[in-house]
Parts: sequence; C-alpha cells; structure tokens
Amino acid sequence: MRYLKKSILVSFLTILTFTSFSQPTNNGRQIKVDQQRIESRIFELAKFGKDSTGKGYRVAYTKGDVEGRLWLIDLMKKAGLDVTIDYAGNIIGKRNGKNPSLKPIAFGSHIDMVPDGGNYDGCVGSVGALEVIEALNENKFVTNHPLEVIIFSNEEGYTIGSSMWIRQYSAEALKAKSQSGLTIADGIRAIGGNPDSLSQVVKRKGDLTAFIELHIEQGGILEMENIQIGVVEGIVGIEKWNITIEGVANHAGTTPMNMRHDALLSAAKLIIAVNEVITSYEGKQVGTIGKISAEPGAYNVVPGKVVLGMEIRDLSIKKIGQLFHDIENKADSIATTMGTEISFVQPSKPVEPALTNKSIQSKIENSAKTLGFTYKYMQSGAGHDSQDMALICPIGMIFIPSMGGISHSPKEFTKAIDMANGTNVLLQTILALDKE
Amino acid sequence: MRYLKKSILVSFLTILTFTSFSQPTNNGRQIKVDQQRIESRIFELAKFGKDSTGKGYRVAYTKGDVEGRLWLIDLMKKAGLDVTIDYAGNIIGKRNGKNPSLKPIAFGSHIDMVPDGGNYDGCVGSVGALEVIEALNENKFVTNHPLEVIIFSNEEGYTIGSSMWIRQYSAEALKAKSQSGLTIADGIRAIGGNPDSLSQVVKRKGDLTAFIELHIEQGGILEMENIQIGVVEGIVGIEKWNITIEGVANHAGTTPMNMRHDALLSAAKLIIAVNEVITSYEGKQVGTIGKISAEPGAYNVVPGKVVLGMEIRDLSIKKIGQLFHDIENKADSIATTMGTEISFVQPSKPVEPALTNKSIQSKIENSAKTLGFTYKYMQSGAGHDSQDMALICPIGMIFIPSMGGISHSPKEFTKAIDMANGTNVLLQTILALDKE
Repeated sequence: MRYLKKSILVSFLTILTFTSFSQPTNNGRQIKVDQQRIESRIFELAKFGKDSTGKGYRVAYTKGDVEGRLWLIDLMKKAGLDVTIDYAGNIIGKRNGKNPSLKPIAFGSHIDMVPDGGNYDGCVGSVGALEVIEALNENKFVTNHPLEVIIFSNEEGYTIGSSMWIRQYSAEALKAKSQSGLTIADGIRAIGGNPDSLSQVVKRKGDLTAFIELHIEQGGILEMENIQIGVVEGIVGIEKWNITIEGVANHAGTTPMNMRHDALLSAAKLIIAVNEVITSYEGKQVGTIGKISAEPGAYNVVPGKVVLGMEIRDLSIKKIGQLFHDIENKADSIATTMGTEISFVQPSKPVEPALTNKSIQSKIENSAKTLGFTYKYMQSGAGHDSQDMALICPIGMIFIPSMGGISHSPKEFTKAIDMANGTNVLLQTILALDKE
Repeated sequence: MRYLKKSILVSFLTILTFTSFSQPTNNGRQIKVDQQRIESRIFELAKFGKDSTGKGYRVAYTKGDVEGRLWLIDLMKKAGLDVTIDYAGNIIGKRNGKNPSLKPIAFGSHIDMVPDGGNYDGCVGSVGALEVIEALNENKFVTNHPLEVIIFSNEEGYTIGSSMWIRQYSAEALKAKSQSGLTIADGIRAIGGNPDSLSQVVKRKGDLTAFIELHIEQGGILEMENIQIGVVEGIVGIEKWNITIEGVANHAGTTPMNMRHDALLSAAKLIIAVNEVITSYEGKQVGTIGKISAEPGAYNVVPGKVVLGMEIRDLSIKKIGQLFHDIENKADSIATTMGTEISFVQPSKPVEPALTNKSIQSKIENSAKTLGFTYKYMQSGAGHDSQDMALICPIGMIFIPSMGGISHSPKEFTKAIDMANGTNVLLQTILALDKE
C-alpha cells in the first residue's frame, strides 16, 4: 500500500509535468510499448523447440533454438535493425543514432531454455528489447546513441555467449559437451558462429555505453509483495563446495548405536547447521545443500561416507566468506562429537558478484515512478548475461514478477501487463541514458 | 576382569570334576578340536573365488562357490560323512548315531560370501562343523543321535538355501536375478540342485532335534568387552521403510530462505529424530538410515523430494512397532513445521525375530563355563540360516569375536584361538544335546 500511494502521487506529478512543463520537442516520455504484440510474440516464440508432448526443449544449439533464432532475426530485420551473428553465435541488431561517435546503448537477453523449461526466462527480455525498437519506430523517435538489441547464445549453459565477450575460451573448453549433446564448438557452428575466430569477439571496456536487461524475477518476492518492478542492485556471487563426511561403514544389524560413526547422521547435523548459519545473519544471503549421496547406500549398512553439494550466494563475497567460516566451525564441532571427518573442496571458481550501476538503478527507479509503478530494490539470485557485461560496461537490470516464483519449469508464467510494464520501464531507462 | 575371575574359578572346578568325579565311560568332555586344522582349512577355503586382484568374490553360484563346495564335499567324505546335495543346493553330510530312531542333531553354516567379502562369515561355522566330526572320529566317539553337517546354499542372497526348507518358492521368485548374475533357478542348477523339485525339500517341524550354528559376531561387542563366547538369545526381527519427504523444488538463488520448503532440510531433521528415538529406549535395538536420494540433486536447486531407506531391528516386533510409532509422531511434527509432507511405505514384509531355544542357550553357557571361557548373552543383529531353521526345530547360535567388529569386508578377521574356542563350545553343546 505504501508503494501504491507513492505511485499515485508520482502519476499525478507526471501529468502536471506533461501538461504544464513538457518541452515542445518529442522527449519520448509518451512512447508506450504494445502489450498485445509482446504477448503474442512470447506465445509464438514458445512454439519453437517443443517436443512431441508439447514440452519446451529449446535448448541452445538444438533445432528449436536454430528455428527460434531465425524467426526472431526475421522480426528484427523487419523492424529495420541491421542484424549480424557474431562468431560466438550472439545475435546483434543495430539501429543508428543521431550521433555515431557515441558508444551504443545495448539491451536484450536470450531465447534458449533449460530442458522442459518455461516460456518467459530470457524471452521477455528478448521480445521486450525488440518491442523497444518497434515502439521507437512507430513514434519515429531517433536516439542520440546507436542502439543494439543483443540476443546472447546459450545463456542456460552458464552464459556462454556473453562470457565469450569477456574472456578467451581454451580449445579444451570448446570441446565440452553442451546440453544439446553437441560440443560448444559444434553448437556455435550450428547457430552460425565460428569457434575458430572467438578471439575477435572479446570486447574492451568502453565499447558500450551500457547494457540493460529486462528479465522475469524467477523468485516469488515481487508477486508476494504485490510489486510491479524490481530494481536490481546486483547479481549475487556464488561459491560452491563439495563437503565430504567420512565415518565408518558398518553392519546396521550388528553395530550397536553407541559404536557407530554414522556419516549420514553427521551430515544431517551439518545440513541443519548450514541452515542455522545462513539464517542467523540479517540480509538476503541464501545457502543451499542441493546434492547428497551416501555410500554404500543400503538399508543394512551404516553409511560410511556422505558427499554434499553446497552453495552460498550473496552480493558480498566477504559475507559469503564469513558465512563459510561459521559453517566450517560448526562442522569441526560436529566432526569431533560424532567421530567423523568433514572436509570442504570447491569444485569450481567462485562466481564474483556483479553490481549494477547506481546511476542506471536510479534511472530504472525514476522510470518506474514516472510510469506509476510500484517498485523495489532487490538482488538477482540467479545468474544472467548481465553479470558478464558488468565487466565491460555499466549494467542495469529490470525485474518483473514471476507467478508463484516458479522458473525453469513449464509452469513459469508472467502476466502480459507485467511484461508490458517492464518493457515500458526498459524503454524509458534507455531514453534517460540516451539524454546524458 | 569380572568374567576372567569367574572363568578361572570355573576352570578350577572343571579340573576337580575331571579328577574326582569323571565317569569311567567316555562322555566326550575331554574331546578337543584341532585349532591348526581349523585355521589351515579357513585359509584353504579362502583361495576359492578370488578375483585377479586377490579379492574374495565367492558369491553363491559362481565358479568360486562351485569349486569351494567341491573342496569341502571332498573333505566331508574323507571324514566319513554320507554327503548329498539336496534340490535347493544345500550340502548335507550325515553321520550315523547309536539310535537311528532319534532325529538328527544338525549344525553348520554357509561358505558363499558377499562380493569383496571376508573369509570368516559362514566359513567358520562350516569348517567348525566339519571339525566337530573330525574330533569325534579321532576319539572314536559315536553319538546317540545321528549328526548332520549342513552347508546352506546362497546365505548371502537372503538365506536362500535354508528358506527353501521352510516355504514353497514361486516360479516368479526363482526367476529373480541373484548376485552371481544367474537367476536363482539357474544358480541352483549350477551347484547341483534342481529348482523343479523344490517342494520335496520343504521340512516339517520335528524333522530335526536341533540346529546349532557357530558364527563370527560381525559386530564389535565381544572384542571390545574382551569376551570369548557369545550365547545368542535370538536373531533380531527387521522392518524396513522407504520414507518420502516432499517439499518444493525451487531455484536456490532466487528463493529466499523463509520461502523454502526444503525436503533435504526436513530429511536432516528426521534423520536426527530417528536416532533420538532409537537411543531413547533401554535395550539393544538398532535403527539405521542407510539410503538417501535427493531430487533434482543440483547445487542450484532447493531439493523438492528426498527418499530415505530406514530399518529397525530388535528381538521384539512389538518394540519395533513402538519405536516406529514414535518416529511417525516426530515426522508429523517436522512436516508441519517445515511445510513438507512425510510418508512411510514398507518395501518388503518384516523379518520376524527368531528366538533361540532357552535350553540350548543353557547348554552353550554351560559348555563355555566348563571350557573356562568368558561368555555373554547377546542378540544377533545380522540375519542367519538359523532364523529359518527356528521355524522347524529348536536352534542355538554361538558367536565368537570379530576383530574390530568388521564384517562383509576383506578386513574381516577372527583369531584361530577364537575359532577353536567356538568349535569346542559347539562340540560340547552337541554332546550335551545328545545326552538328553
């Protein structure tokens, strides 16, 4: 309710501005996107890559991905964009600005999906980016900056397309199997890229004015709190650990309870301890144990070894370190009490947090206010192409509600009105950036 | 120490008995088994079924099992036994008694092993049973009762050979794959049985006077308490449950801690609750969660479903019921607190407890006392052929120490002196039974 009252006030002021103080020139504030066109394009895009049962398998590099991309490229060309596919398979659609010496303002997302995924993750940001161009075209509005609609390749394979803009890929990394079954190299070839020339797509800082991504929240906060727009403060860093608990495997019938060194009982205590540590601090940090295996894994054997897969996410890498330190202390005490050994190994490098640009945050907030939307500052718990882009330019992210917080599932759903609201905020944020 | 003092006293009394009150006729009390023969036969038997790395794979129905059985049959025949293989593949070696109208006293165990198993489980009871015959032969001692050395087939496949003595097997059950890769039916054929005539091996109550089994403890109690002989009170009953915990799978990055229904966190609380319930009662009951799986099982997804495999063992089926009742109550409370659902299903019929015969228990105790051994009444936490035999005749079981309590492992070990002690107790118990 607090948000609603504020937004009514803002809307009123906006009307005043338009009527009393608006400049005679077209500043673009009145431009609105077409909700119906967004929705129908989301439905059209959803048709590509469905399996025989109607489930969505538009996994990067597959037939559905290739066909969906061709459909989108066609629309981008019809909207007057100068479309190219770079060597990493990313689709770039350029629109000239009044001042060709300015670096482009880029925006977009991705259209590939996880297996049996949903129709909104990435698609809203992609269709929304094209919609911004359509709306500008319809209003014959030309920005000062060149604009670039970017559809990154294989986001769901850990932001492959965008990561090729920020670092060199080794021959080994290109041989890795993607979800499609193809190697990354062959996958890139399948969508019109060239894995042999990837060094040429690596960007430098300053190549772009900014990158803005509209995306569904993929969590349930906006819906639960009845808020229309999320102003993303940053994309969380992620650290992973494999935790090995070594006890003594023994006969479950012949080993008295007081002579056991049960690795699974130790693991249970640790799982609870991790939850206690994570929830003992103020803030938005999350910690999850999502994987578990127990050996030998029989009814009649006391488990001798358990391996857990843990991850912790937060906008501050320092805080993740503090949480892990507390977890290690609890693990030490559990190991001592239970007569087991607990060790932690990081299976991969930490994903660094990517903070969004404060000035772009303000522009998103102002756009939401001006348009009369409720909004909230929040973090992105999921990874996005934007986190790679943060290394080469200022970034901004706009979130819109995911119904029930469900994502990476056929049940993923976002209302058409929310998609239109987010796209209007994207448009106004781009125009605000363009004025600087 | 308490036991040691008592045994010294007992030994002293034994000597008195022998010197002052022994009958002029040979009552067999002076007959002793040959420790070295037992040990060397255990080592010889261990050679059958080793793989190229030297690990023991004398799994029932495999080449190693067939060869080990032929070796043992040859020794049994050399010891004058009348050896037959019944349709279930069990080896029976008969020795006449003075009174052919008496029902045989049977004793024995099994020689098959789990994959990568040890050289003592079953083998001590088998070699020990043969040793009893050898010792009687050397002392030209003829019992009143006929004696039968029984080597049951495929004990490690859940007492297959002995269970065929107590119930009809369906055609379906005979088609089940055994650990060897063969079906039960083909396995029985491989060891000289006949699966088509199994109905003829089913025994009636009263066919045997008793069945006595010498076995390694497979737990660490005797060794830890420095006791030589375990007088087994019974073989525990076993009930199994599959426990399903249903939560909500969700993105581990975007789902705030307070919006989760984490099935693994619920499972952790339940694992601890099970341990608390089992250890909250006086007694020797054991409860184990040996199996766990979490779905979808990724670092970045809050687990939506966990399945646990639990078993509870005790000599009283009523007590198992009480323990399970308490666990269900704790599960209800965890499910409510965590917003998850917990359900229990029994994947197989309970294994009923098998109590040993009180009179045989006393004979084992008396034999141990007379021989000057420390002893302890205890339960068998593991299953044995004896539990099937309990349905058709009085049974007795004698335990000897397992070093470190380790079993079903190449590290399984029992000292030669302990094997000899146990076999002497077996011999004297048989003679005591024979006198009745």
